[in-house]
Amino acid sequence: MDYLDEIKSLKDQLSFSDTIKDIEYDRIVIAGMGGSGIIGKMFEELYTQKPIFIVQDYQIPDFVDKNTLFIGSSYSGNTEEVLSAVSLAKKKGARIATISAGGQISKYGDENVHIPRAGLQPRAALGYLLVPLLLSFGVSTKAELTRTQKILKELDDDNSECEMHAKNIFSNSSIPVVYGVAPFKNVAYRWKTQMGENAKILAYSNNFPELNHNDTMALAKTYRKEMFYFFVFESSQRIINKRIELTSKITKTKFHMIKPEGKSIVEKLFYLIHYGDYVSYHLGRLRGVDTRDIGLVEEIKKGLAKSS
Amino acid sequence: MDYLDEIKSLKDQLSFSDTIKDIEYDRIVIAGMGGSGIIGKMFEELYTQKPIFIVQDYQIPDFVDKNTLFIGSSYSGNTEEVLSAVSLAKKKGARIATISAGGQISKYGDENVHIPRAGLQPRAALGYLLVPLLLSFGVSTKAELTRTQKILKELDDDNSECEMHAKNIFSNSSIPVVYGVAPFKNVAYRWKTQMGENAKILAYSNNFPELNHNDTMALAKTYRKEMFYFFVFESSQRIINKRIELTSKITKTKFHMIKPEGKSIVEKLFYLIHYGDYVSYHLGRLRGVDTRDIGLVEEIKKGLAKSS
Repeated sequence: MDYLDEIKSLKDQLSFSDTIKDIEYDRIVIAGMGGSGIIGKMFEELYTQKPIFIVQDYQIPDFVDKNTLFIGSSYSGNTEEVLSAVSLAKKKGARIATISAGGQISKYGDENVHIPRAGLQPRAALGYLLVPLLLSFGVSTKAELTRTQKILKELDDDNSECEMHAKNIFSNSSIPVVYGVAPFKNVAYRWKTQMGENAKILAYSNNFPELNHNDTMALAKTYRKEMFYFFVFESSQRIINKRIELTSKITKTKFHMIKPEGKSIVEKLFYLIHYGDYVSYHLGRLRGVDTRDIGLVEEIKKGLAKSS
Repeated sequence: MDYLDEIKSLKDQLSFSDTIKDIEYDRIVIAGMGGSGIIGKMFEELYTQKPIFIVQDYQIPDFVDKNTLFIGSSYSGNTEEVLSAVSLAKKKGARIATISAGGQISKYGDENVHIPRAGLQPRAALGYLLVPLLLSFGVSTKAELTRTQKILKELDDDNSECEMHAKNIFSNSSIPVVYGVAPFKNVAYRWKTQMGENAKILAYSNNFPELNHNDTMALAKTYRKEMFYFFVFESSQRIINKRIELTSKITKTKFHMIKPEGKSIVEKLFYLIHYGDYVSYHLGRLRGVDTRDIGLVEEIKKGLAKSS
């Protein structure tokens, strides 16, 4: 399958409606790496009824107990760090839920969400991984997800603006830097990872207002400034947009502002995600790299298996 | 005061022993920005008995309630985002603790830690801000902090290795990238922020094992690779060090490995922090920039005040 088809499939993934049911808990821990982990971080920004803790390592925090809902997210179902974390959580009596398209992970789950479509790149399965969380915890409704599909379809039909950014970046061999705003700070990180995985370009992310407390002076005075290409998401908060405007003006930095389409948070979320997917796709295409290739990631996994 | 004296004062700050007392809670939220905020993220990695949530914005999560210990960290005591977050938390009945060297914030606190020394750069007051958390929650003992002081003193006396890295970076106008490992992932972020604030250079951070899931291909195939200067912290976990070794070999990337000195976690933590402080200090000195200058950050604050 062509990677462009995988990207386009995001809108269809929003029809997925399996949920995590009937597990009692006081707090939530979500374990996941890479494309399967970013959904936990995104969800943490959107669901604020209970504390959520993100695990991206082999170990788990001591507070995990029988009142903890421990969600293991792994598209393959075999991610080494996540299997380790979930099995440790199970030993401590946590209620386990898993989201996967197969693999070993579901054997640990009290409740398992099975993604009906295998064979995608994990990073292209973001909808399948995120929708169960959005629906299970009432962050989104099916009606909102249906409306979101229309917005993504429009981007599938016309993403010339994404292509324009990709051309700008490619023609100058720029390093993309993406600045997020709440509740989409981790969408900026998603863009960074997509630039890395699809276009094979080192890219970076940060967010407002935090970056005003550490990047401002550097934005004005760093060397190699002309080498960076800055994206920023438009905020729904006036004060944050004012910060963005002032930062651009005072540090003399050109920000490429991305305005999220849609009314609901979820529409805006997926629009921004899809937009970044397209920028990274076009960038990979322009560079002539294989957007799907993750050969070296597999090589590291093999190297680890051999040494353990 | 010279900024070098501020950096050197970190070891003396470890004598500070005020703590947060007698507040009941089920969960902890820590609000702080920039130099005053990074301590929350560092603490979150070290204290794993209860869930910790970090706030770096004007808003707070819905789950904040009377069973929440809400810690506002602001060296100046007047950080706009933190004052907003703390006042919202107080309205929701949270137990409030504050850490500051003055300002407005302590009027919200049920328990206030007063830093005895004003006039430092917030980022140079890291010890004063972090020690109350380490002692209050039993993450460290005074004996460990005393041992840490000796290790920092040795770095004050000889930081030629830090200077060597700074010279390498400066001579090539490199962009520093710092890779952390647990439980020091946020120390890598601290290095990034110090490069930005002290040396006025855009720098970036990421961590193992997460970066294997998104940066690996880019490390091998990005353009402008020769422009980056990669630091990585040595882990105490064999499997993480194996990941680092394999990543370096497979992507053909030179990593500058920093080995944390000391026996306890806290000794290693402050050693790594101090090491990064020195790299950024030397880098600022070589560039001929004023390491203390944060004029544009103040300009943004003034611009915001004017528009509100």
